[in-house]
Amino acid sequence: MHYQRPKGTADVLPGDSDKWHYVEETARLLFEDYQYHEIRTPLFESFEIFSRSSGDTSDVVTKEMYDFHDKGDRHIALRPEGTAGVVRAYVENKLYGPEYAKPYKAFYIGPMFRYERPQSGRQRQFHQIGVEAFGSDSPALDVEVISMALAFFKQLGVSGLRVAVNTLGDKKSRDDYHQALVDYLKPHFDELSKDSQERLEKNPLRVLDSKEPEDQKFVADAPSILDYLTDDARNHFEQVKQFMDALGIDYVIDPTMVRGLDYYNHTIFEVMVNSKVLGHGYTTICGGGRYSGLVKELGGPDDTGIGFAIGLERLMLLLESEKVAIPEKNKLDVYVVGIGDETNAETLKLVEAIREAGFSANRDYMNRKPKAQFKSANKEAASFVITIGQAELESKTAHFKSMASGEEVSLPLDDLYKDFSKIYDKYTGE
Amino acid sequence: MHYQRPKGTADVLPGDSDKWHYVEETARLLFEDYQYHEIRTPLFESFEIFSRSSGDTSDVVTKEMYDFHDKGDRHIALRPEGTAGVVRAYVENKLYGPEYAKPYKAFYIGPMFRYERPQSGRQRQFHQIGVEAFGSDSPALDVEVISMALAFFKQLGVSGLRVAVNTLGDKKSRDDYHQALVDYLKPHFDELSKDSQERLEKNPLRVLDSKEPEDQKFVADAPSILDYLTDDARNHFEQVKQFMDALGIDYVIDPTMVRGLDYYNHTIFEVMVNSKVLGHGYTTICGGGRYSGLVKELGGPDDTGIGFAIGLERLMLLLESEKVAIPEKNKLDVYVVGIGDETNAETLKLVEAIREAGFSANRDYMNRKPKAQFKSANKEAASFVITIGQAELESKTAHFKSMASGEEVSLPLDDLYKDFSKIYDKYTGE
Repeated sequence: MHYQRPKGTADVLPGDSDKWHYVEETARLLFEDYQYHEIRTPLFESFEIFSRSSGDTSDVVTKEMYDFHDKGDRHIALRPEGTAGVVRAYVENKLYGPEYAKPYKAFYIGPMFRYERPQSGRQRQFHQIGVEAFGSDSPALDVEVISMALAFFKQLGVSGLRVAVNTLGDKKSRDDYHQALVDYLKPHFDELSKDSQERLEKNPLRVLDSKEPEDQKFVADAPSILDYLTDDARNHFEQVKQFMDALGIDYVIDPTMVRGLDYYNHTIFEVMVNSKVLGHGYTTICGGGRYSGLVKELGGPDDTGIGFAIGLERLMLLLESEKVAIPEKNKLDVYVVGIGDETNAETLKLVEAIREAGFSANRDYMNRKPKAQFKSANKEAASFVITIGQAELESKTAHFKSMASGEEVSLPLDDLYKDFSKIYDKYTGE
Repeated sequence: MHYQRPKGTADVLPGDSDKWHYVEETARLLFEDYQYHEIRTPLFESFEIFSRSSGDTSDVVTKEMYDFHDKGDRHIALRPEGTAGVVRAYVENKLYGPEYAKPYKAFYIGPMFRYERPQSGRQRQFHQIGVEAFGSDSPALDVEVISMALAFFKQLGVSGLRVAVNTLGDKKSRDDYHQALVDYLKPHFDELSKDSQERLEKNPLRVLDSKEPEDQKFVADAPSILDYLTDDARNHFEQVKQFMDALGIDYVIDPTMVRGLDYYNHTIFEVMVNSKVLGHGYTTICGGGRYSGLVKELGGPDDTGIGFAIGLERLMLLLESEKVAIPEKNKLDVYVVGIGDETNAETLKLVEAIREAGFSANRDYMNRKPKAQFKSANKEAASFVITIGQAELESKTAHFKSMASGEEVSLPLDDLYKDFSKIYDKYTGE
C-alpha cells in the first residue's frame, strides 16, 4: 500500500529545510532588533474565534476552514491566519497590562491551514511570518512596521520591491465612503458581475477588489476614499506619508486597495514584486495594516493593532527564482574511515569526540569497505578524512588527510581526542 | 465575550519563547554535527497512516487521535507522533534511493496532537524533537543515537541522567518470548488486573508495563527476554553494550522495558532523570529504539529504522526546575528619546538606521513625555539612551548616554547615521 501526503501539503526535505530555517532566523534576528518578540499560539482555536475575527460570511469561514469537533465535542478549527490567535492570546494573558511595554510587539512564524485549491505558492498547509503591535495609534508605528517588512526582504536580497499604501480612515470616513460607493454603484447594479452584486449588499468596498471585466470600468471611476477622510484620518495618513518620505521609502498610493474585514482602519499596505514565478506583473508578497475593534471583539480593551503577514511558500519561490544566495550549512568537517571490524568502537569514539568538540563528523554504519567509505567522505564533502586501521589501532595513531590541500600526516589518537579544534585550526590554516 | 485557548493547549509568550527557541537551536546545531538534517512533514496526514503505524487497537488511534473529515471528505488526522510522517515522507520521496547517503538521517521539531487528559508537562498540543535514521542495522548506529540524545541533554546542562536499555531481539526472539510469557501468565489469568487480562490477549508484552499492584508480583518474576534471544539478536545487543562501554556511557539494562508496537526490535532505550517536577523517582525524558517493518508497511523497501523522541513540554519544566541557564537574548542596545513632536521623524530615522547597522533599537510610540520615555528605556534595559530635542535637531547632534558607565556626550547625528557600530564599540569599550 502506498501513502501520499494530503493534497495541498508538502514535505520540506533536508537541503530545502535549511533555506526555510535561514529565512525564519533572518526574520527572528531582524524583528528582535525592532523589539518584536516571538509569540506561539496553538495551531487550533475555538471555531468562534475565527468566525468572529474573519466575519461569519467570509470565504475563509464558510468555505476554507479546517474545522471539526474534537472528542469532547468542542467546535475547533486549524488556524487559517495568525492574527486572531495572537489577539486571543493578548486578551487572555492580559498582555495589555501595565507591566508590559506599550505598544506590545510580537511576531509569529508557523503553519496556517485553508482548504483552497492548491496552486504554485498556495498550499492548504501554508506558512506565514507575521507581526502584530497593539495599543498605539502612532503613525510612526505604521511606518516602523512597513519599514521592518522592507528591511526583511532587503536582508534576504529581494530587489525590485514596490510599496503600495492606502488609508481606510476612521469609522466616520468609512461610513461616509461606504454610502458614497453605494450611491455610485447602485444605479449600475444590473451591469455588475454577480459576485459584485452580492458584495454590494454585504460589503461594497470589496467590489473594488473585483477582477471581473464587467466591474472594471466602474471600479476605475469609483469615488476615492481619500475624498471622504475626516480631518483626523487625513492627518494620520499625512504623517504616515511624511515619515515614509523621511525614511526614503519609495511608495505609491493605491486608493482602490481595500481589506475585506471591518476591523481594518487607517493605513493598509502591500509589498509587491514583479516576478514571473509569482504571476503576471506586480504581485503581493506582504500585506498588512491597522485594525481597530478586534481586540475588543475578543473580550479585551479597545486597543488598536497593526501588523503584517508574509506567505513563506511564495517567498521561497521568489528567493529560488531570484537565485538569492542562502549561506551554506551542514558542511561536514570530518569523515572517519575505519578499516576492519576491530576499529568499530574506536571510530565511534572518535566521531563522538570530534562532535563534542563542536565539529560535524560522520562515519560508516553500512559495514562498507574502505573504498566505499572514502567515496562517502567525498560525496559528503568532508574537509578532513581520518583513517584508522589495525596498524593505527596498535600504534594509537590515525592517518589524517586534508582534502583541500591534500596534506597527509600521522597523528597520535590522543591529540585528536584531547584538542581537536587545535588540529582543525592548524590544518585549515586558520 | 471572552475566549480561551482550547483545553490542553498553551500560549508560549515572549520571554518563554526565547527558551524554546534556544532549546530547538541547540538540537539543530548538535544534530547537524551528527549529520542529521531537518525534515518537515505536514501537521496532518491520512488517518490510515497513523492507524497502520500505531496499530488499529492502540489507545493513540482509538481514543486520542484528533481525526476528522476535511471538506473533500478525506479522513485525516493531526499527527499524534513524528515517526509515521517521516516514514511516509521517506517512502513517498524515495529517500532510500542510491543518490542519498545511507543511513538516511533526519530530525524533526514540531507540534503533535493527542486528545489526552492534560496534566503538568502533558498537553493536547505538545511538542517533540525527534530523530530517525533509516537503512542501517549497525549496532554502532544504535549507540550513536543514544549518545546523541545524551549529548543534547548534556549541552543543555541537564545532569543526573540515567540510560536504561533493553533489547526486544529479532522476530524469532520475540515470538519465543511471547510464547514463554503467555505460558507463564496464563495460569495466573484470574489474578491479573482487568487491563492486563486484556493485554494478555492482544499484546502480552504490555503486561510488563502494568502499574497495577496486583500485576507487580507476576511482572517481577516473569521470564526475561534476554533468555530468549537468538544468536544474532544476542550478538547485536552485546555490541551495543560494548560500544556504550567504549564511549563511557553509564547505563542499566532493564529487561522489563517494552514498547507497545510490533515494529520495535533489538535495542530500545530511555533516558531518565530523577526530578520532582516530572514525578516520583526516575521518569523518562527521551524514549527510542530500533524498528523494522514500518517502512515496508507504508509502501517502501524493507528498511529498518532507529530513532528517539523528546517531549519538549517536560524538558522545559525540567530546565526551569533545574535552573538551567539559558543565554540571554533580546538585549536592547539603544533607546532613542524624542522631546517634542517635531523630533518624530528624526527619532524614527535614527532607530531605523541603528537597526540597519545590526543593533536593536526602540523608541516611543505612545506620545509619552520625556520622563516616561526614560523610564521605558530603563525598563527595557537599554545599553545606551540617545536623546533628541529641538536644540539637537537644530545643531544636528544627539545627546548620547552610556547607561553602564553614566558617560554622556554630544555626538553629531551624521556620525550616528554613518557608522553606529564604531560608536557602539567605542562606548562599550570593545
